[in-house]
Formats: sequence, structure tokens, C-alpha cells
Amino acid sequence: MYNPGYYEFFCGVKTVAGHQALERIPALLKGLGARNPMIITDKGVVAVGLVDIVTEALASSMPGVVVEDDVPVDSDVETVHRIAAVYLKKGCDALIAVGGGSVMDTAKGVNIVVSEEAASLLDFSGAGALKRPLKPLVAVPTTAGTGSEVTQAAVIADPSVNRKLLFVSHFLLPNIAVLDSRMTLTLPPHLTAATAMDALTHAVEAYTCLSKNPISDAFAMEAISLISRNLLSVVQRPDDRDGRLALATAANLAGIAFSNSTVGMVHALGHSVGAVSHVPHGTCMSILLPYGLEYNMHKSGQWTGELLYPIAGEAIYAATPKEKRAEKTVSCIRAFNQALFDATGGLHSRFFREVTDRDGRPAVTREQLPDIARTALGDGSIFYNPEEMDVDDALMVMEAAWAGAPLDRSLVKTG
Amino acid sequence: MYNPGYYEFFCGVKTVAGHQALERIPALLKGLGARNPMIITDKGVVAVGLVDIVTEALASSMPGVVVEDDVPVDSDVETVHRIAAVYLKKGCDALIAVGGGSVMDTAKGVNIVVSEEAASLLDFSGAGALKRPLKPLVAVPTTAGTGSEVTQAAVIADPSVNRKLLFVSHFLLPNIAVLDSRMTLTLPPHLTAATAMDALTHAVEAYTCLSKNPISDAFAMEAISLISRNLLSVVQRPDDRDGRLALATAANLAGIAFSNSTVGMVHALGHSVGAVSHVPHGTCMSILLPYGLEYNMHKSGQWTGELLYPIAGEAIYAATPKEKRAEKTVSCIRAFNQALFDATGGLHSRFFREVTDRDGRPAVTREQLPDIARTALGDGSIFYNPEEMDVDDALMVMEAAWAGAPLDRSLVKTG
Ligand SMILES: [Fe+2]
Ligand SMILES: [Fe+2]
Repeated sequence: MYNPGYYEFFCGVKTVAGHQALERIPALLKGLGARNPMIITDKGVVAVGLVDIVTEALASSMPGVVVEDDVPVDSDVETVHRIAAVYLKKGCDALIAVGGGSVMDTAKGVNIVVSEEAASLLDFSGAGALKRPLKPLVAVPTTAGTGSEVTQAAVIADPSVNRKLLFVSHFLLPNIAVLDSRMTLTLPPHLTAATAMDALTHAVEAYTCLSKNPISDAFAMEAISLISRNLLSVVQRPDDRDGRLALATAANLAGIAFSNSTVGMVHALGHSVGAVSHVPHGTCMSILLPYGLEYNMHKSGQWTGELLYPIAGEAIYAATPKEKRAEKTVSCIRAFNQALFDATGGLHSRFFREVTDRDGRPAVTREQLPDIARTALGDGSIFYNPEEMDVDDALMVMEAAWAGAPLDRSLVKTG
Repeated sequence: MYNPGYYEFFCGVKTVAGHQALERIPALLKGLGARNPMIITDKGVVAVGLVDIVTEALASSMPGVVVEDDVPVDSDVETVHRIAAVYLKKGCDALIAVGGGSVMDTAKGVNIVVSEEAASLLDFSGAGALKRPLKPLVAVPTTAGTGSEVTQAAVIADPSVNRKLLFVSHFLLPNIAVLDSRMTLTLPPHLTAATAMDALTHAVEAYTCLSKNPISDAFAMEAISLISRNLLSVVQRPDDRDGRLALATAANLAGIAFSNSTVGMVHALGHSVGAVSHVPHGTCMSILLPYGLEYNMHKSGQWTGELLYPIAGEAIYAATPKEKRAEKTVSCIRAFNQALFDATGGLHSRFFREVTDRDGRPAVTREQLPDIARTALGDGSIFYNPEEMDVDDALMVMEAAWAGAPLDRSLVKTG
């Protein structure tokens, strides 16, 4: 739906994608005036051989590139300062972030310190503290999910005061996102499924939230279409390079979409389940997405119905009467989760009751649900959610998503 | 169609759109560190009152803004140098271009001279001559067609050597494109139709050319959908502000689409008709678009068929068998031209034989067609056209488009 009132849209990241896109990095960096990049990554990415692929792609024109691989699971201020010191000592002039969200955030933090010659990263937290372009930053995502290669935010922990600092600026956007199919080729099927469902949720919430606009809509539609057509086949044949690149493209598009509209209650609840019960973000998204659409349906049903086209394809879309399309979209997503459950031998989760922790114990107990519901209401993601969610509603949704029953929509309080 | 081989995508222009988007310019400029902008426009834009709307929108925080309105129909080097001298003398720190392609190009040229403190604009012609960001440039398009507010090129004439200079650089991209419905509200119906058909052609050729990619596809699809749903109603009710803004958004999206893939033979032939017979660009596009799709159909028919969905809507799309969709897309575009002809009292043209010049004489004579066909082959737009067009084919297409007969596709030589 086209909302002509007012909107803004900005991307600013150049996307470079292909089966050998990494080989383009030296020329791209030279175009940005840089010749001595530092790679920032983590030991997990190194262990599966992905950094070797990157350094080999650079080797002919940039041999002996500096690699810093000691990034923790959650990026922190001390790591940023330590890596920035190495960058300066080695005379680097650009950054290549190879990894997931934490690596991207660390690279953004390092970029602030080295570009602003800052004594402390802490001086630049919040929104709008940056006033000018930073050093060239190339982002190479190793999961097709978060879209953090195209977001202008970074979250970096300050353990000394037990706080997470948020940094927001257009200048934190990478100059270039490089999507190379080799970076996700070895991602196990169930992680491929969970991360792609995160990307799908970005696109679906971007399209069904109140701050949608026609440009974010276009990105969301294409992302949903690419995921629907490629995810199951990639999970079944993990070495499908074209499918891998399609999913990486989709995650990129979905990241641009939600960066320019927003997400919604699925992310609010999901962040909360992550914080309280330590369930991976992609798993939370897979489980919660159909419930969020059901909860909001009386407000955003038309938009949800439009999504049946990219989700199910033209035949099912055309055969479904208009007033039934929103419900059909939800049932298609549930069927998609079931197909991913089957294709991963049960490693993809359909509801919270069946999610287990590393020791095989239930990860989310029924007793945690009230805490999860309360925590979700403080999450900024619900600001543009179609329906206003209160704590009773949040608990009702969590109980249904825990048990695996469809939502009883007659109980949703309409605001 | 998703082509996973390799692609690059970049936009970089922030889009700000709404019924009162102009009022946001002072805050946006301050965000870019500028307080004393110069407006560059032409006397036609001033005459219809559009510059007054812009200066009023700025008045409360930027009173007495400098306005330079002496831009000719084709921008030239002398005008650029003259305006640059005024900019420097008045201590301006940003540019606001209000107008069509020539105004945008002039502003880009001025920006080169004032930012690089250049003795002559000529020193920066070609691709890649610029190495760093220029002064802030805000583009306010007054037609919903060219998309030049999001392109990184400028064409500026050097009459002293009877030459057109091309300037290409990421740094020529405006920082912000401001789409405000008031800027196109008074555009006469037949010009609204012609400029929107130019935008439609940008999107259709971007989607059906060989250098298409999934991101340009997403932009093209949304642009086509917005034009198909809004153009005829805006031509019938020119004061439809929501429809006006939808068309401005579509032109913007289409401009981003073709900037990241390319156009095709419709533009090659159209440029040639413009050069030889002086027919306005939008008129050439309206007439030639269905012929270009027919000519390429044996190569790009699947893509053309996919366009039936945004062009005709879901009911017609679903009711048309897959193998008939490409032809149906073409016939829908022809029907669209006929409807615009009817709605404008015959001012919108359907074929070249009925186009007249200012004195009511035929603008394109049959004798000019061989010259037009030859000239088209030298146009860069045909590089990624699905079929390789030779001079016989170009003449055959021009003869059909002149007479108004559908193309005899059996005569197309396949390469
Ligand atoms: Fe997410
Ligand atoms: Fe054009």
C-alpha cells in the first residue's frame, strides 16, 4: 500500500554480489583510495576456512593483509580499543569486516576510533555524534540473515558499567557490502533455515508495519520472493551456490527494507526471548512470525494478504479469494516451518516448547513467559507495530507460540 | 529473473517524499552542515510559480535565499561558470536544483567548479575525474519522468567546440532528492502522460535488459505498479495530489533501476528520433515502448510476461496463460497509450505519423526514418538490449512505429 503522507528512504551502501565477488575487493578499495586494509573477523569464521578464502581473493594485489580475529560473541569496548591500536600501528587505511553482527559492530567501533583519532569510543555513543565520513569499510557477511552489513547502527558492550552502548549514524554504514556465495556455502542446514527466517521476518515486518513506504515495500517484496523460492531447496541441497547467493541477496534487501521502515512485535518478543531464555534470534523469528501476523491481522490484514504472492507464488495467490489471503499467508509460513523441520531432521523449531539448550533441556519454560512478555514491552521494535500490544496480549501470544497452537484471534484487544 | 553471476547496485541518494516535503529542506541541509544554499532553476519553472513554493518553504529558517534562474534548455559550460562565480561571491555552501534534466546537469556542473575550486569545468569531464565528495546538493524534480535526480551523470554542452561533454561520478549524485506533490501538480495532462511514459520505459527496459539484477528488478516492479495504478487517473484529475506523489515516486524508483542496470533499444531509437526530428523524449518513449518489447520478445519474452502483473493487475495476470503474457503486456501498453490519447483530447501520441511540430506540420517524415535508424545504432543504450539490432531491424521498427502497425515479429533476424 502506498502511503503518500511522508517518508524518507536511504541506503548508501553499494552492494556487490556474485560467486567470485571477493576478488573485486582490491579494485573497490583502490577506488576508495585505500591500499592496506585490516580484516576484522572472529575465530569461528577463521575455523571454518572463510578468512582463508578472503585472503586468497586479495592475495595477488594485497598480500599479507593484517587479520584481527579476536572478536568475542558480543562486541565490547576493550576489543574495539585493542584492535584500533593495531590498525594504527600497522598503518592500515581501511577495514574489511568478515562475519556476523558482532564482527560488523566491532568494525564500526574500530572505524570510529581510528577515523576520529578518538581517545575513547565512549565519546561517540548515541545518535548523531559523528559529523563526517569515516575510513572505508567493506562488509562481508558470513550469514544470510541479520542484514547488519547495511545498517547504520552498532551495539557495543561496556562491561565496566554492565551496559550496552548504541551508536547510530549514516557514517557507520559500510561503503560496500560484498555478497559472495562461498561465505555461506558451508553454513549447516538448520542455521541456514534460522538465519533466513530472520531475514524473512525483517522483510515481512518491514512490509506490514505502520512506517512502511513504497521503496521499503519494493525491497521487502523482492526479499520475500527470493527466500520463498530458494530456502527449502538450499536446506535440502546446501551446495546450491545460486540458491546461497539468492539468500544472501534476500538478507541484504530485507536489511535495507527494515532499516528504512522498521520491524515490529515479532522482533520485540524475539529480543525478549533471547534475553530471558537465550534462544538464538533466528529461531525466535521462525517461531514468532506467524503469531505476529495473526495478532495484527485486524489492522494489517490487507498487507499480509498481499504477501501471499511472493510467499506462495502466483497460482496459490490467484486461487485464494482476497479476504482469505492473509490467513493463507500465515498458514504458508507455518507449513514452511514444518517443511524446514522435516528437512533438518527436527533441528529447525516450530514452537518454543520444543526448543532445547545445549544439554538437551527445554530452553524456554512456561514460567519464563510472563517475564518475557513484560520485557518485550520495553523494546523499541513495537513502536510502529500495527496493533498496540499490552502485557496481557504479549503473554497470550507467547503462550500460543510456546504450545504451538494458532492464536485465538477473538481474544486480541483492539486499540 | 535472478541472475546470480555478478552484479553491483548503488543508489546513495536519500529520498524524501511527501505533500510538504520541501519544508524539510532546511533541517536536511543543516544535517549536511550547510546554511546558505543557492537555488538553481530556469525561467519556465519560475513562471509557473514553483520556485515561490520552494522559497516559501525555506523562508522561516532560510530567508532571502539566492536564486539563479537563468539556465538554458540545454545546459552549457558558460552558464555553469557564470553561476559558479555568483555562488562563490555570495558565500553559498550548498545547491538546491529545482527543475528538469538541464537544471540538474547545470547544478552538478556548478558543484564541480565550486567544490574543486576549478578554473574550468572542462578539466573534470569524463568518468572518474572526481576523487572526493562535493558540496551538498539537493535535487527537487519538477517533472515525474527523467529520474535525473538519482543519476550520477551530467551532460553539459561546450558550444565553443560544438560538443556535448559527459561527466560521470558517484560524487555527482545529489545527497537528497526531495519529491513534493506540489512540484508536479500543475503539469498539463499530456506532459504528465509523456513524462510518466518515459519513467515507465526506464523501469520496463531496466527489467528486460541483459544487465538486470534482483535489486534493480525490485525498483522497476514497484515503479511500473505505481504508474499503472495512477497515471490515467492523474491525467483525468490533475489535482490528485496522492497520485502526483505516486508518479514522482515511480520516476525516482525507475531512475534508480535503470541507473543500476541500463535501458535498451527503445531509448536508442528514441534518442535518435529526438536528435533527427526534435520530438520530445517522453513522446518517443510512449510510442516506441511496445515496439521494443515486441522486437525483443523471442529473447526477453519471459521477463516481459512477468511485467503483466504490475501493468495489468492480478486478475488479468492470473487469467492470462503464461505463454500469452508477454503479448498481453504489449497490448496493455498500447491500450494504455490509447486511453491517454482519449483522456488528453488527442495530445498524447500513439505513433510517429500523428506527431506534429509547433506549426502543426508532421514532425517525423517517412524520409527521415533511414537516418533515424542509422543514428540509433551509435547509441550506447543498445549495448545490453536482449537482441542485437542492425540497421535493417531498426528501420523496420521505425516504419511500424511511424505507421502505427504492430511489428511483424516474423521478420526479426535473431542473433
Ligand atoms: Fe532480526
Ligand atoms: Fe528516458
